[in-house]
Amino acid sequence: MGKKVAVVLSGCGVYDGSEVHEASAVMVHLSRDGAQAELYAPDIDQMHVVNHIKGEPTEEKRNVLVESARIARGNVKDLATLKVKELDALIIPGGFGVAKNLCSWAVDGKNCKVSKPVEDTIKAFHSAKKPIGLCCISPVLAAKIIPGCEVTVGHDAECEKWPYAKTAEGLKELGCKHVNKNVDEVHVDVKNKLVTTSAFMCNAPIHTIYDGVGKMVKEVLKLA
Amino acid sequence: MGKKVAVVLSGCGVYDGSEVHEASAVMVHLSRDGAQAELYAPDIDQMHVVNHIKGEPTEEKRNVLVESARIARGNVKDLATLKVKELDALIIPGGFGVAKNLCSWAVDGKNCKVSKPVEDTIKAFHSAKKPIGLCCISPVLAAKIIPGCEVTVGHDAECEKWPYAKTAEGLKELGCKHVNKNVDEVHVDVKNKLVTTSAFMCNAPIHTIYDGVGKMVKEVLKLA
Repeated sequence: MGKKVAVVLSGCGVYDGSEVHEASAVMVHLSRDGAQAELYAPDIDQMHVVNHIKGEPTEEKRNVLVESARIARGNVKDLATLKVKELDALIIPGGFGVAKNLCSWAVDGKNCKVSKPVEDTIKAFHSAKKPIGLCCISPVLAAKIIPGCEVTVGHDAECEKWPYAKTAEGLKELGCKHVNKNVDEVHVDVKNKLVTTSAFMCNAPIHTIYDGVGKMVKEVLKLA
Repeated sequence: MGKKVAVVLSGCGVYDGSEVHEASAVMVHLSRDGAQAELYAPDIDQMHVVNHIKGEPTEEKRNVLVESARIARGNVKDLATLKVKELDALIIPGGFGVAKNLCSWAVDGKNCKVSKPVEDTIKAFHSAKKPIGLCCISPVLAAKIIPGCEVTVGHDAECEKWPYAKTAEGLKELGCKHVNKNVDEVHVDVKNKLVTTSAFMCNAPIHTIYDGVGKMVKEVLKLA
């Protein structure tokens, strides 16, 4: 039997939900490695809806679970129903939805709050010593919830390749250790069974992001 | 310089737009093969918006170009502005958006109309002898526009693995030749420079769909 891995989505679209390509890469790599993806999302309103051409919020309202179903092809469950004992690992793809819908990092920075079902889920996998894979901005969730953990969101010096490098500084302020890694690398915090990779935090060709996510998936499955 | 390939999207989400994973696979494979994806979508309302959990239409209105930008990470242009002479090939991922927004196949079957900018685009690439790659349901566009062409949408005998096999019959009624192919295979109509693969017409693990789309991309680039 393949490993069962919970994949937690935060909507559909980089600016207000899950980053579509990171989520897809997670699903493709889990499938190739013989694991089964079980998709979840919280049944809550999105913080807002962003017109992805203009990069500006609209007046619309959308639900995180319903929009996540676009990535999940309909097969997604309410995060509140997740049972850790039935699952072997947890993966949370990136996208601003993580920082807007799963926690309030986009608004509150280091003072952010993590939404209750997301916090409960991460704590439960961590307590059960089951591995957690995070990419792009989603390591912020571990930095907030698992004191002193080690993560990467890429590099901590801003440049064209690393436009969001200040995120690394923000994570350090939360008390975690940030480890610089390239887009095709992962960092494994062995003690906390935490695997992180930068994904679209790096301005890099999409196939290198796909490959970095693939390494994260492989390391998570090794630890499961 | 890498080849420039127009990728035409039809929204974001399998039931009313582009199939997210097919679109992502096209982009990842183009990137890996050194080509440049130029994303386009028509600036029109979606036929409707489907709640992807319930599988039912809602009262919402969404625009195909704006929703396609979720897959394109904002970087998508109005299909009406596409200039064939600046591009080397055309690829159209599947999803019901093709049959609902790019043409009326979902409603009218073999009597479907193809939307003007989509028809103009396909005819222009075909006339210029530039290759066209189509997957899942999108071969219906070629079947309608390029008389007597050869395509695959997978297998023509319905079973658990091929739940949409009747589509093949429908395409034959449009006068094209349908060729049975597995999910990890493509059919190349050399005369028409047309490359097709079944993708999610097949009930198969997502990594095999990713690989089939990869073969389509490779064959398209070979012909470009």
